[in-house]
Amino acid sequence: MPSKMQLANAIRFLSIDAVNRANSGHPGAPMGMADMAVALWQDHLRHNPQNPDWVNRDRFVLSNGHASMMQYAVLHLTGYDVTIDDIKQFRQLHSKTPGHPENFETPGVETTTGPLGQGLAMAVGMALSEKMLAAQFNQPAYPIVDHHTYVFLGDGCLMEGVSHEVCALAGTYRLNKLIALYDDNGISIDGPVAPWFSEDVPKRFEAYGWQVIRDIDGHDAEAVSAAIAQAKKADKPTLICCKTQIGYGSPKAGSESAHGSPLGEDNRDVTAKALDWPHKPFVVPDAIYAAWNAHAFGESAEQAWQDLFARYAQAYPALASEFSRRMAGALPTEFAEKTEEFIAALQAESTDVATRKASEMALDFFAGLLPEMVGGSADLTGSNNTKHQHSTLFSDENPAGNYFSYGVREFGMAAILNGMANHGGVIPYAGTFLVFSDYARNAMRLSALMKHRVIYVMTHDSIGLGEDGPTHQPVEHLASLRVMPNMHVWRPCDAVETAVAWQCALENQHGPATLALSRQGLPKIARDEMQLANIDKGGYVIRQGSDLTLVATGSEVGLAMQTAAQLATKGIAAQVVSMPCYERYRLQDKPYQDATIMADKPRIVIEAGATLMWEGLVAGNGFVIGIDSYGASAPAKDLFAYFGFDADMISAQIETFLS
Amino acid sequence: MPSKMQLANAIRFLSIDAVNRANSGHPGAPMGMADMAVALWQDHLRHNPQNPDWVNRDRFVLSNGHASMMQYAVLHLTGYDVTIDDIKQFRQLHSKTPGHPENFETPGVETTTGPLGQGLAMAVGMALSEKMLAAQFNQPAYPIVDHHTYVFLGDGCLMEGVSHEVCALAGTYRLNKLIALYDDNGISIDGPVAPWFSEDVPKRFEAYGWQVIRDIDGHDAEAVSAAIAQAKKADKPTLICCKTQIGYGSPKAGSESAHGSPLGEDNRDVTAKALDWPHKPFVVPDAIYAAWNAHAFGESAEQAWQDLFARYAQAYPALASEFSRRMAGALPTEFAEKTEEFIAALQAESTDVATRKASEMALDFFAGLLPEMVGGSADLTGSNNTKHQHSTLFSDENPAGNYFSYGVREFGMAAILNGMANHGGVIPYAGTFLVFSDYARNAMRLSALMKHRVIYVMTHDSIGLGEDGPTHQPVEHLASLRVMPNMHVWRPCDAVETAVAWQCALENQHGPATLALSRQGLPKIARDEMQLANIDKGGYVIRQGSDLTLVATGSEVGLAMQTAAQLATKGIAAQVVSMPCYERYRLQDKPYQDATIMADKPRIVIEAGATLMWEGLVAGNGFVIGIDSYGASAPAKDLFAYFGFDADMISAQIETFLS
Repeated sequence: MPSKMQLANAIRFLSIDAVNRANSGHPGAPMGMADMAVALWQDHLRHNPQNPDWVNRDRFVLSNGHASMMQYAVLHLTGYDVTIDDIKQFRQLHSKTPGHPENFETPGVETTTGPLGQGLAMAVGMALSEKMLAAQFNQPAYPIVDHHTYVFLGDGCLMEGVSHEVCALAGTYRLNKLIALYDDNGISIDGPVAPWFSEDVPKRFEAYGWQVIRDIDGHDAEAVSAAIAQAKKADKPTLICCKTQIGYGSPKAGSESAHGSPLGEDNRDVTAKALDWPHKPFVVPDAIYAAWNAHAFGESAEQAWQDLFARYAQAYPALASEFSRRMAGALPTEFAEKTEEFIAALQAESTDVATRKASEMALDFFAGLLPEMVGGSADLTGSNNTKHQHSTLFSDENPAGNYFSYGVREFGMAAILNGMANHGGVIPYAGTFLVFSDYARNAMRLSALMKHRVIYVMTHDSIGLGEDGPTHQPVEHLASLRVMPNMHVWRPCDAVETAVAWQCALENQHGPATLALSRQGLPKIARDEMQLANIDKGGYVIRQGSDLTLVATGSEVGLAMQTAAQLATKGIAAQVVSMPCYERYRLQDKPYQDATIMADKPRIVIEAGATLMWEGLVAGNGFVIGIDSYGASAPAKDLFAYFGFDADMISAQIETFLS
Repeated sequence: MPSKMQLANAIRFLSIDAVNRANSGHPGAPMGMADMAVALWQDHLRHNPQNPDWVNRDRFVLSNGHASMMQYAVLHLTGYDVTIDDIKQFRQLHSKTPGHPENFETPGVETTTGPLGQGLAMAVGMALSEKMLAAQFNQPAYPIVDHHTYVFLGDGCLMEGVSHEVCALAGTYRLNKLIALYDDNGISIDGPVAPWFSEDVPKRFEAYGWQVIRDIDGHDAEAVSAAIAQAKKADKPTLICCKTQIGYGSPKAGSESAHGSPLGEDNRDVTAKALDWPHKPFVVPDAIYAAWNAHAFGESAEQAWQDLFARYAQAYPALASEFSRRMAGALPTEFAEKTEEFIAALQAESTDVATRKASEMALDFFAGLLPEMVGGSADLTGSNNTKHQHSTLFSDENPAGNYFSYGVREFGMAAILNGMANHGGVIPYAGTFLVFSDYARNAMRLSALMKHRVIYVMTHDSIGLGEDGPTHQPVEHLASLRVMPNMHVWRPCDAVETAVAWQCALENQHGPATLALSRQGLPKIARDEMQLANIDKGGYVIRQGSDLTLVATGSEVGLAMQTAAQLATKGIAAQVVSMPCYERYRLQDKPYQDATIMADKPRIVIEAGATLMWEGLVAGNGFVIGIDSYGASAPAKDLFAYFGFDADMISAQIETFLS
């Protein structure tokens, strides 16, 4: 039977060898955390390498994602579909072993990490989902949702502000099944961390309401394992502080030089001697493979759960069926039909309304159909209109609640939404002001990179926010989110478009959406059936014309209609296009696009935001009416007038252009 | 002599009245913090209302910027150029009293706040600047830099992650002149904060190495004043926890309903009775004005300093002159000439080099001329090449140091740079990977809004980053920063353009710059004198042609030159334009632009980033070669080939387009 140190050395040398071969990567952290990995994966983690999608598996997140080779090594050793050839392809194009863990590339990788702090945040999101789903679905003697979420993290994660946001929440919510192991190696890229990282980490986490287990020797797998066992008994989240040496066993041990570059062959040889690892690169002895292999364990663990779930399905067939639907991410069969009715009724009956209010109306409807919708706001619930008639506040006392007051923590909130989406069983959405998407931006990017169905409700989407002034008024945000790959930005103009935006966001299982919504009331647009059916094309004609095309989004659609009416009095026939989702419009075929925006006629785009991205649509024949400076503090109507959003002014500009 | 409560009530009622009149705003926090303001402004703050620019004034930052009326009221009462008519214009277009404090609108407002947490962060930056400048300029018996930085903050600031980043740093740096007063009112917008904000704040700040003064009654100005006095004696930063009631004295006291909407006239009447304030709206009794007025105090305080500085100037004339130059933000007289020589030498002598390395070369030069340059990196010093030959690490032991290892704290770092720029006397710059500009984005926006000379060194600016993969590879970032008003994005192609980018960034006193720099080596471009002189126009011809224009930036300029050479073999004469700064190019006149990008000829843009923003330049005649998906983990050369950045492929595409 190999020793635990030998098991850890298998991780170390696979990491050394893969990084050496790639001539790129981070050997130090895998070598430092290898014993922690042994403790977790050998003694505690409930998983099944043969089915990485087993819904009740424990989740593992590597928040210090640069240590990816540790994760690949463990996945390989325990018997996931990660072969030694995959390990040899570390950091190569189209391999299963990219530079940082990507959940869409590698079986067994729960989420994408690398941007520091966010792995920890997503682990909090996973633990929240577990707690919520357990409360919603478990029945006496049927703990069908009952797993831990483990996360490894480093100094960098703890320096990042997002770690503060989410760990404070994890303490407040008493996420006792969240167990974090801190790789306290005292080194970051700039060197020994003392000159820039001197906080008392245990005290900080105690202040958050965590159990903190201090002073664990991170190279003593037994000690780490005992700490995990203690953590499992706590009634709150646990931080286990593991003192480690980066690059353990190598000549670079304890130095930042072990962090981000290959050890090289010479250092490998020295390390191999020091750690008594006489094996060639990429060779792991059979006995070590055998000790690591988790096929039998995993099969038995999952089978026990499958048996439990089968009994649960007999006792609670409706709940079991709903649970399965939710974990599969499928919409209910009646979704399409009921949605169509809802939207038709809105077209018939709705009135002028702010689109943030329209979004609340949509939520009242959709959340009735979809109990998996989990909402929230970064302390702007009343302004974002994210709470609906089916919402109840989640808390430690009400863990079945489906609504979160995340506090003023935009980044943490968005990262938590990603973790919830990673976990499955929920469709997360949450709100803040559009301008503060800046705070959450890199998490929104991870939503898009992972193609998560996460819905961002971003209200107060222009100078229409009014008096709060330029720090609160988005200008460049619509453009900056539209250029984010896989992100769909919806800027609906009335209650009907808002409902369609929600519908499309919910139906799209392969990417996030940002709903940019107005603070101010907006006029309802009349539509025939064809127009109604075309909203989901992202851009469509709402008024026919032959002389030019006016394109507008959201709060400027009503203005475009006014302008067209004004132009008509001068004998100019303007076609008006509402463009709620440019990304979707661009997916339409050319005949549709040519019918929408007339090819050889002038185009004028109106949007209360940065103009640069619309210049291509204008294509040198027309102009863009937008805002390329910061806003100001004033009532919204004064601002719109000041910035030239006025039908008289715009129609005069158009007449000048045409003449 | 009015009581302290009466002095506070003047703030309360000016706030109530202004918000009522604007029918918009936040009365609750000014009412809650009024007594804290009395303590600070009556007993401690050293300032001169007649000269808000006095360089040695104490700095005051209102981090919970929605309490702006508290600040306007105090500025008005103490005698700044903020009249009662200005107060009546609260939140109106072009007023001195916008919804949130804007340092460019109101005398006495040090910085722009509103985005929560960042005021606190900027206060840290101010305190850092003070500590550094004091170490650099003070001489025995001549403490010419010797002031405190005070900051008021609320629950929201403490929830935000950025507060963690900067307060951990403030503790590490032992910023003993930083005094933070926490308005602990237990309320945020969603309601009483306990369900989402339960951390032990004092314990958290003790973990950061702060002095914490607990349990101060925030409505007892004497107690607050005593706490400030105690704070001034500490050898570390101090947090004073002031228990307050939001909307103190009103029927809405202690409720979130006092936060963000007017009290209304009825509630004003009730509050006036409760607080014994029998005065009409906007009326403050003369005795209260007299007690608040700080003209005499301010004149005397500043005069004492002016006398000190005059003696200093006699004793240390060179230091005094340098101090004055630096506080004025002026470049040394020899700057232009020496820079011209440097750049000419680079054109003559430099070789192929990564632009991040070229940036380090530029820093070696510019920082020699400009000791006010204060550098740093978010734990990527060796990768960002932000440390130069004149750098020494700032620390509590070496406070004269001009370089900061900020740790993995991108947002906090950027906000600190803003605070440094607010303080004056320094030109701050700092680095991270371009992709992590996402983390810092809202602080970068504040740099641009405040028109600060802050320089962001963003390296690893494309898939050229290579193996670290899509989480580390920027795609949409160039576009998303270019649409940010006032932000100049430079993406230089070689050592010479990099030096010009630095020059322009340093010369521009009215806005920040982002330098997007390559990880990988780039070929040096040949230039004649005219071309060299045109770099600062932001776009210029580096190869003449007549059939079409190839436009490229940064690492794709060399590729464009290769492509042009390739096309020449087919008899196609491509003009090549290097476009290091599109924002500056767009400021050029039409004849220059038409000579650069030929009007009726096809345009092909090549940039390894999102394409949407370039479509306008193409104007329907040509195409953009870019990347509209996420990158991948692989060696850079494999990625460039995979994504089609190859002269053969591009010239074939162009031939097809032309045929």
